[in-house]
Amino acid sequence: MKTLIKDVDIVTLDEKGTVIRGGALAIDGAHIVAVGEAPVEFVPDTTIDGTNHVAVPGFFNAHCHASMSLVRGYAEDLPLDRWFNERVWVAESALGPEEVRAGALLAACEMIRSGTVAFNDHYFYMDHVAEVVEASGMRASLTWCQFGLGADKEVGADLEGALAFAERWNGKADGRIRAMLGPHSPYVCPPAFLREIAALAKEKGLGLHIHIAESEEQVSRSLAAHGVTPARLLEETGVLDVPTIAAHALYLSDDDVAILARHGTTVAYCPITYMKLAMGPGDVPRLLRAGVNVALGTDGPASNNDMDMKEAVRFLPLLQKLACRDAEVIAGDASLRIATQAGARAMGFSKAGVLEAGRPADLVLFDFDKPHLVPRHDLVANLVHAAKGSDVSHVFVAGNLLYANGTILTLDEEKIRAEAERAAFRMVSRDLTVLREYQS
Amino acid sequence: MKTLIKDVDIVTLDEKGTVIRGGALAIDGAHIVAVGEAPVEFVPDTTIDGTNHVAVPGFFNAHCHASMSLVRGYAEDLPLDRWFNERVWVAESALGPEEVRAGALLAACEMIRSGTVAFNDHYFYMDHVAEVVEASGMRASLTWCQFGLGADKEVGADLEGALAFAERWNGKADGRIRAMLGPHSPYVCPPAFLREIAALAKEKGLGLHIHIAESEEQVSRSLAAHGVTPARLLEETGVLDVPTIAAHALYLSDDDVAILARHGTTVAYCPITYMKLAMGPGDVPRLLRAGVNVALGTDGPASNNDMDMKEAVRFLPLLQKLACRDAEVIAGDASLRIATQAGARAMGFSKAGVLEAGRPADLVLFDFDKPHLVPRHDLVANLVHAAKGSDVSHVFVAGNLLYANGTILTLDEEKIRAEAERAAFRMVSRDLTVLREYQS
Repeated sequence: MKTLIKDVDIVTLDEKGTVIRGGALAIDGAHIVAVGEAPVEFVPDTTIDGTNHVAVPGFFNAHCHASMSLVRGYAEDLPLDRWFNERVWVAESALGPEEVRAGALLAACEMIRSGTVAFNDHYFYMDHVAEVVEASGMRASLTWCQFGLGADKEVGADLEGALAFAERWNGKADGRIRAMLGPHSPYVCPPAFLREIAALAKEKGLGLHIHIAESEEQVSRSLAAHGVTPARLLEETGVLDVPTIAAHALYLSDDDVAILARHGTTVAYCPITYMKLAMGPGDVPRLLRAGVNVALGTDGPASNNDMDMKEAVRFLPLLQKLACRDAEVIAGDASLRIATQAGARAMGFSKAGVLEAGRPADLVLFDFDKPHLVPRHDLVANLVHAAKGSDVSHVFVAGNLLYANGTILTLDEEKIRAEAERAAFRMVSRDLTVLREYQS
Repeated sequence: MKTLIKDVDIVTLDEKGTVIRGGALAIDGAHIVAVGEAPVEFVPDTTIDGTNHVAVPGFFNAHCHASMSLVRGYAEDLPLDRWFNERVWVAESALGPEEVRAGALLAACEMIRSGTVAFNDHYFYMDHVAEVVEASGMRASLTWCQFGLGADKEVGADLEGALAFAERWNGKADGRIRAMLGPHSPYVCPPAFLREIAALAKEKGLGLHIHIAESEEQVSRSLAAHGVTPARLLEETGVLDVPTIAAHALYLSDDDVAILARHGTTVAYCPITYMKLAMGPGDVPRLLRAGVNVALGTDGPASNNDMDMKEAVRFLPLLQKLACRDAEVIAGDASLRIATQAGARAMGFSKAGVLEAGRPADLVLFDFDKPHLVPRHDLVANLVHAAKGSDVSHVFVAGNLLYANGTILTLDEEKIRAEAERAAFRMVSRDLTVLREYQS
C-alpha cells in the first residue's frame, strides 16, 4: 500500500528540527519513503490532500494503565494515599478480565482519536489488552503488573504467568507488540523479588516497567528499610541492568539522577497526575542535562482523567517553566520530542518518532483549519500550546491508516462506548465491601 | 423564540450543586423558564435532542486581549520582561484598527466554539471589538486601555476618548455589551492618573479593569516609589471604590487580600499565562477564604496561546492542587463556578452563570458521546478534567443559538480565518524597526 500526503506542512522532529511548509510525504508499506518531495516514480494507491494540515510523528504514551479508563471520575480531589487506598484499589478490585478488555478498548479509541500511536501499559489480565492492541492497529509495550507479595495470583498471574504472557506476545502483531516484565514498585516489591525479576528479565532479554520515587515519603521509607534510595535499590537489585522505564521518579538525589543516566533508564513523566494528586513537579531539565531519556505519559484516567497525549505535551513545558521559574526551559519542540522519539526509544520502537525516509510510518495529521490554530507564525508553538487532541484528523501506524476525519477504521467505537458504560456499571455494582474483606 | 432541550443531563451550578440526569431545559426569549421538567403548556418553536449531552452555564472569560490572537506563537519561551519588551510590544505596535478587528473576529470564533459566552476585553481601537461583539451575539465587557502617560493618543484614544467609547457602547446590543474604563496597571499609570480615572469612573457609574501585582518586582517597585503595595495604592487612589476587575494579583500581602475582599474587587486568574511566563501560581484558596470574588480568564494568546476557557477550567484546579500541595483544594464544581457565575458577576451580568428558571439563557451543551467522556461516574469531574472545548456542540447567549454542531451561526468563520492570516502577515511585514524608532 502506497500513500501520498501532498501539500502538507511537516514538523519532522529530525536532528535539525526541519519544518517543511507545503511538501509531500510518501509512505510505502510500513515505512516513510520520502519527506519534502515525492520521487517522480512514486505512484500512490491513495492520495490525501494535506492542505491546511500539519504532519508530525504520532505520540508514544510512555506510562499508562489503559483499562483504568473505567475508573475515570471515580476518585476525585483526594491526596495520593486516600485516592489509592479508599477509592482506586477498591474500584480495581472489582475489575475482572472482561472489564480490563472493555477499558482497554475505550482507551484505545481515546488514544487513537488524539494522535497516540503507541502506549506502554502496566496492568492485569494483559492478554486482553494485547488482543485490543492487535485489533486496533496500535503499537504497545505491555507488562503484567507484579507485586511480588504472593498476592499476584489474585490479580491473574504470578511471575511465571507474567513471563509466559511476555513470551507469548513479544514481537506479535507484525512486531507492533513488545512485552516487558512489570514489578509494580520498590515500595511494594521486596528486594529479593526485584532481584529475581531482574535476573529473569536479563536472561530472557526483556525490559522492565516500574514505578519509583513518587513521594518524599517513599524515599524516606526506602532509606529506613533498605538504607538506600529507590533508584539505588533498583541498581543494586539489577533492575537497571536491563532497559527499564521508571515511571514518575519525582524525588531523586543527584546520585539517583546519575544512576538513571548511567544505566540508560527512561523516566516516564506524567505531569497531569502530579498536579491532580499534588505530588510535586519533579525537575525535567535536570534529568535532561544529566542525559536521562525522559519520555511522556498520561498515567491512568483515575488520576489524569484522560489519555490524551496532546494535553500532556502542553502540560509538560508549562509545568516545568513554572516549577523551574524559568520560561526558557522545555522550549520549542522539546516537548514534542519527549512525547514521540523518547517514548519510542524506551518502548523498543527505536526508529520511530521522526519523519524521515526509512523511518516507520507512525504519524498523525493535525487539521489546522481552526480559529485557534490561526495565524501560523510558528507551527511548533501552535502544535505544543494551541492544538488539541481533537484537531487530529488522520493517524497512521506502520503505514496503516487507523483514523480519518472522525472515524476509527479498526474498532467499532459506538459498541465500545456502550460496553464500557456497562463494564463501569458492573464495577460499581459489585459489592465492594465484600471484595475488600475477602482480600484483607 | 422558544427552545426546548430534552433528555439532557444538566449541571446547574445552583446553590445546592444540583445535577439532573435526563431532564428538560426550556428557554423563552432571553431567559431560562424551566430546568428539570418543562411545563405542559410550553410549546417550543425548536426542540433539541439532548441525549448524551450535558448542559452547563457558558463560560465568562474574565480577562483577555482578544485581538492578540494575531500574536499567537510570536513570542515563545521568553521570561515576562523580554516577552513583553522584545516581542509583544513590537508586534502590537504594528497592529492598527483593522488588525484589531480581524483579531477580535478570530478570537470570537475560537471562544464561541469552546463554550465561552462572554469576555472581558482590555485593548485598543475598541469600537472595532464592540462591533465584533454586536455581530457575534456574545456578551462582553470592554475597556479601552489607558497608560496615563500622554502616549494614549498613539494607541487610539486618550481618557476622553476612552470615556466616550464607554458611554457610546455601555448597554448596547440589547444589553449584551458593558463598558468599563481601563487603566493598564499601577506600574504604568501614575497615581494622579489613577485618581483621575477612578473619580471619573465613580462619577459616570462605570467599573474599572486593571492589571496588578504580576511579579514580586512590581510589588517592590511600588513600595519603593509610593511606599505602599499595588493593592493599597489602588485603594488610596479610589480605584477600588468602583467595581474593579484586577487581573492577576499574584503577589499579595495578607493586608492586600483583605483590601480586595473589603472592596468587593474581582481577581481575574489566568493560570496558563502564569505557567507559560513562569510568573508563579498565586494562591486561589487564600483569596476564596477571604471572600474575594475570583474569576477565570485566558489572558491574551501571546501568552496562553489559546482563548479556550475549558482549558483554563482544567488548569485552575490542577495548578492550585500542586501549588498548595493539597489535592483537595478547588474541588468538585468550584472551577466551573469560578469560570461562570464569578465572571458574570464581575462583568455586570450578575444573574448569569446558573441554570435556573428566570436566569439568562447563556448556556452550552457538551457532547458526551466521546470515548474520553465515558464512563459517567461523575459528570462534574468529566466536565472539569476530561471534556475539551471541542466537545461543545451548542452555545446559547441570551436565548439565541450562536453555534450548533460545528457551525458558527453568526459569523463567517472561513472568511475570518483568511482575513486573520492576512492581518497577521501585515503585522509581521511592517517595518517593525522603523515603528520602534518612531515610538522611542
